[in-house]
Amino acid sequence: MPTYTAPVKDMQFVLHDVLKVSESGIPGYEELDRDFTNAVIEEAGKLSAEVLAPLNPVGDAQGCVLENGVVRTPQGFGDAFEKVKEGGWNGLDLPEEYGGQNMPYVLATAVGETMVSANMAFNMYQGLTHGAISAILAHGSDEQKQTYLPKMVSLDWTGTMNLTEPHCGTDLGIMRTKAEPQDDGSYAITGQKIFISAGEHDMAENIVHLVLAKAPGGGAGTKGISLFIVPKFLVNEDGSLGARNGVSCGKIEEKMGIHGNATCVMNYDGATGYLIGELHKGMRAMFTMMNEARIGVGLQGYAQAEAAYQNAVAYANDRLQGRDVTGAKNPEGAADPIIVHPDVRRNLMDQKSFVEGARAFTFWGAQLIDQAHRSEDKDAEGLVSLMTPVIKGFLTDKGFDMAVQAQQVYGGHGYIEEWGMSQFARDARIAMIYEGANGIQALDLVGRKLAADGGKHVMAFFDLVKSFIKENEGEEALKADFLDPLKAASKDLQAAGMYFMEKGMRNPNDALSGSYDFMHLFGHVCLGLMWARMGKVAQAKLDAGEGDAEFHRTKIATGRYYMKRQLPATATHLARIQSGGDTVMALEAANF
Amino acid sequence: MPTYTAPVKDMQFVLHDVLKVSESGIPGYEELDRDFTNAVIEEAGKLSAEVLAPLNPVGDAQGCVLENGVVRTPQGFGDAFEKVKEGGWNGLDLPEEYGGQNMPYVLATAVGETMVSANMAFNMYQGLTHGAISAILAHGSDEQKQTYLPKMVSLDWTGTMNLTEPHCGTDLGIMRTKAEPQDDGSYAITGQKIFISAGEHDMAENIVHLVLAKAPGGGAGTKGISLFIVPKFLVNEDGSLGARNGVSCGKIEEKMGIHGNATCVMNYDGATGYLIGELHKGMRAMFTMMNEARIGVGLQGYAQAEAAYQNAVAYANDRLQGRDVTGAKNPEGAADPIIVHPDVRRNLMDQKSFVEGARAFTFWGAQLIDQAHRSEDKDAEGLVSLMTPVIKGFLTDKGFDMAVQAQQVYGGHGYIEEWGMSQFARDARIAMIYEGANGIQALDLVGRKLAADGGKHVMAFFDLVKSFIKENEGEEALKADFLDPLKAASKDLQAAGMYFMEKGMRNPNDALSGSYDFMHLFGHVCLGLMWARMGKVAQAKLDAGEGDAEFHRTKIATGRYYMKRQLPATATHLARIQSGGDTVMALEAANF
Repeated sequence: MPTYTAPVKDMQFVLHDVLKVSESGIPGYEELDRDFTNAVIEEAGKLSAEVLAPLNPVGDAQGCVLENGVVRTPQGFGDAFEKVKEGGWNGLDLPEEYGGQNMPYVLATAVGETMVSANMAFNMYQGLTHGAISAILAHGSDEQKQTYLPKMVSLDWTGTMNLTEPHCGTDLGIMRTKAEPQDDGSYAITGQKIFISAGEHDMAENIVHLVLAKAPGGGAGTKGISLFIVPKFLVNEDGSLGARNGVSCGKIEEKMGIHGNATCVMNYDGATGYLIGELHKGMRAMFTMMNEARIGVGLQGYAQAEAAYQNAVAYANDRLQGRDVTGAKNPEGAADPIIVHPDVRRNLMDQKSFVEGARAFTFWGAQLIDQAHRSEDKDAEGLVSLMTPVIKGFLTDKGFDMAVQAQQVYGGHGYIEEWGMSQFARDARIAMIYEGANGIQALDLVGRKLAADGGKHVMAFFDLVKSFIKENEGEEALKADFLDPLKAASKDLQAAGMYFMEKGMRNPNDALSGSYDFMHLFGHVCLGLMWARMGKVAQAKLDAGEGDAEFHRTKIATGRYYMKRQLPATATHLARIQSGGDTVMALEAANF
Repeated sequence: MPTYTAPVKDMQFVLHDVLKVSESGIPGYEELDRDFTNAVIEEAGKLSAEVLAPLNPVGDAQGCVLENGVVRTPQGFGDAFEKVKEGGWNGLDLPEEYGGQNMPYVLATAVGETMVSANMAFNMYQGLTHGAISAILAHGSDEQKQTYLPKMVSLDWTGTMNLTEPHCGTDLGIMRTKAEPQDDGSYAITGQKIFISAGEHDMAENIVHLVLAKAPGGGAGTKGISLFIVPKFLVNEDGSLGARNGVSCGKIEEKMGIHGNATCVMNYDGATGYLIGELHKGMRAMFTMMNEARIGVGLQGYAQAEAAYQNAVAYANDRLQGRDVTGAKNPEGAADPIIVHPDVRRNLMDQKSFVEGARAFTFWGAQLIDQAHRSEDKDAEGLVSLMTPVIKGFLTDKGFDMAVQAQQVYGGHGYIEEWGMSQFARDARIAMIYEGANGIQALDLVGRKLAADGGKHVMAFFDLVKSFIKENEGEEALKADFLDPLKAASKDLQAAGMYFMEKGMRNPNDALSGSYDFMHLFGHVCLGLMWARMGKVAQAKLDAGEGDAEFHRTKIATGRYYMKRQLPATATHLARIQSGGDTVMALEAANF
């Protein structure tokens, strides 16, 4: 069975040495000193390693079962959920007035990583609730907040997001679920929603569904959409639970992975719903939560890769096959451990350099979200909005690839469910699809984010890269291994951006045909930047004789690997982009 | 439920227009005229589409069940197996004296592709039998051939290959299964083998296990290994079945995919085995079958991608979401079919250009095998031996990637088992692992095949590319779109080869750290060569006004896509290779 250990030291390195959170001046960050974050992450890591990780294969094997309208979660999930509740983990970054602890999102991100690595399917019950809370916080009335938030923050009640319908996923404008105004100010919601994660289960007293539906008078397309709160049990004035609402789970889907999470078909049969936010502005309400939700999915991508990587390393050290070509490393044994083989190293280094770069990138994104919210910093918000599709799309694509590579380390055993490596790959696969399939992320990046605010944010990103290179180009130790590759990759990214500007104006297909490659190109540059920053910090620590020299040397070696072995991919992405839309669009639909 | 249609026209194009099989002068190829191969492939395709494909999801959902030592295959598999038997499909390329039809392997490859695309797990029962037949043909005594082959060719009996043990997969030298000589000349086989595909099932009267084991006196390592025939039921002198042998299935594995095929733990408890081939030369006996077996697995990679692609295209034409950015294509409908979107096109073109290139490459490999066997052409054998790890490693890696991309076209539905796209990805995943994990293929390529016969075969490959370019560089229509990209990619491959020669001599880790990238680089050049050849033929047909112009234009457009969008990857692979082994080997094992 796979095991998991929270990478606390790596997280601390990112938080304190790279992002320097406690010196950043963001309100609330002054509490994030080394000891405090260490204690919090250690504690969360313990829960993740000891309680959640052992349940991961259980959830996969048992799945969820729907019987008489009730969804039974896998054995042990209920008890574990109680432990998450008791620890108050869900409220870590939520307002104190509703029972939370008002800590920065960046800390919740670190905590969340340990839980997602340990048990992604389980963590979604909490994750969806957190998303629903954010929506109510941002758009709910005071009464709605008082009614729902305390119980949701404590996880007595959980939440869901209901967007997709059988015939519409990406294109919400064609949705059919209807909201009919009632005399008492509520709405009667009727329709069917699919792919509703945690839509029904047995771990909470109540489930608060946030549902997009069309109310009369809004017109066609997405303009007519409003957002509604539809609780499973209506809530009486005194806060106690009342009648069962007209919402039910009609089916749970058999999926490739995340079996421990119930993916429900939800039927709304004139269910009582309460408008949240403005009428006909439901899409806007959804958008405000999107960065956070998408960063959370990007995190799932690399967090699955982290868990898979840890086990691949253990197996590579354990499994004896063949001999080191430069001389036996385990001469007493029947063979050497496979970690001696260069191609196994190549595989593990791919994984390690990706995961650590991805973590730094994601934590940086989380810090920017804090900066946007807590310091009301519009530039930070613009920058993180630009990078959000990259975090989501690039990190989930690569996270899946790395989980597949980790599986490969196990040879035949990687394909056998008992060893657990298949689950990491199967679970990671969904992150490329939900919360906007990765093709949609690429479209969002190229079609919307690049040009947002007159291209201000992408220029800010380039300035950031440029000034980092400029500030540090005197450092001999960094130049060849970190700065030069970063400069080359960044040049490729700029060339791609220029290509879009020149060609995309005349024919949008030229830009959109390259959107997916652009997302990956951008991702590589971001991870290159993170590795350059990490390399700089680690080198400075070494020069100053501070901290754990072995740890810092390992960081530098891992960073060098990324710069030498992964960043060159930018040239291929640029070539694909610059080949334009003609080859992509050449065929008639009938000739595929 | 997914559907499948045999791509007969594409296969015919490769066989007759590209490989020009009936003009090739290989003994037996004179029978392969257009009408004949068309009829054979059509017939096989019909069986694949109508009988095997509908059973693919059934096999996935039901899997195999072990009860009281008997393995029950999924519902319908037995009847379908009877139809494969009745059609004589297994004997297509086997000797007439044992009931086969003695057709070329290249034709069996085309037929096999349709069956693998339709139902990979099912086809393995036949595929393993075919492999065991090849072993007996090559190394068995006349008596052994008479005893086993007629029943195996007819599929009354099936076969298996038993190599792997719990502690040894790649490193067969450390195997423990023992063979003790008995007074009657037979051996008593004792030990445990794992991952035995089709090891036990209910579709054949007898199962003929080919088992590697150590007989006394052979010394340590792989030298001591011999190959034995261990039938499930002993065979009486009159050919009737005798006593049950001491071999049994102890367990069937729960796997990520190919659920319809029973992957067995086989226990040998003093089972009666008969030496096949020379004592202590079992490894050599295995090696002679390796090219064919590995090409068969490479075929599985792209054949799964083909099946997934066909369904992705159908879905992309059917699913309505969003609008064409250049103007609505389905203005009467609620939205346009998603095939209008450039990123969906990019995804589908990746798949199409890979699968068609891979088919040509694999058929070419099969033709070289025929040439080696039927014309006793040592150069053909050397060339196909060089390319075999590329066919196996590159086509299974990319085949899996493409199945994953096809799944992505379905959005959320791609993750739901009911839609069948998950199965293509899960089934395709095993092809990267078995028959030598792809890292081993890369090692075989760089560590063994490159330098084989003094580098003669890799030089022959380069000459082939060079002379193709030289012969055709006068063709304006080919130059920019096909020849120039091929030349650039081939230059990258040569540079990588040079790097290995220079560096690898001093430090083998420099070469082995780049082996995986080299395998992919080589794969791209091979597919580039195939596309250049296909482009040339299609252009010539167009120029001559021959055949289906739309078909040929589509070939050219698809080829252009591959050359422009996929071949540039060679530069990244070269950069990774040339970065050497230092970054790969930098860390101590403890620092991963």
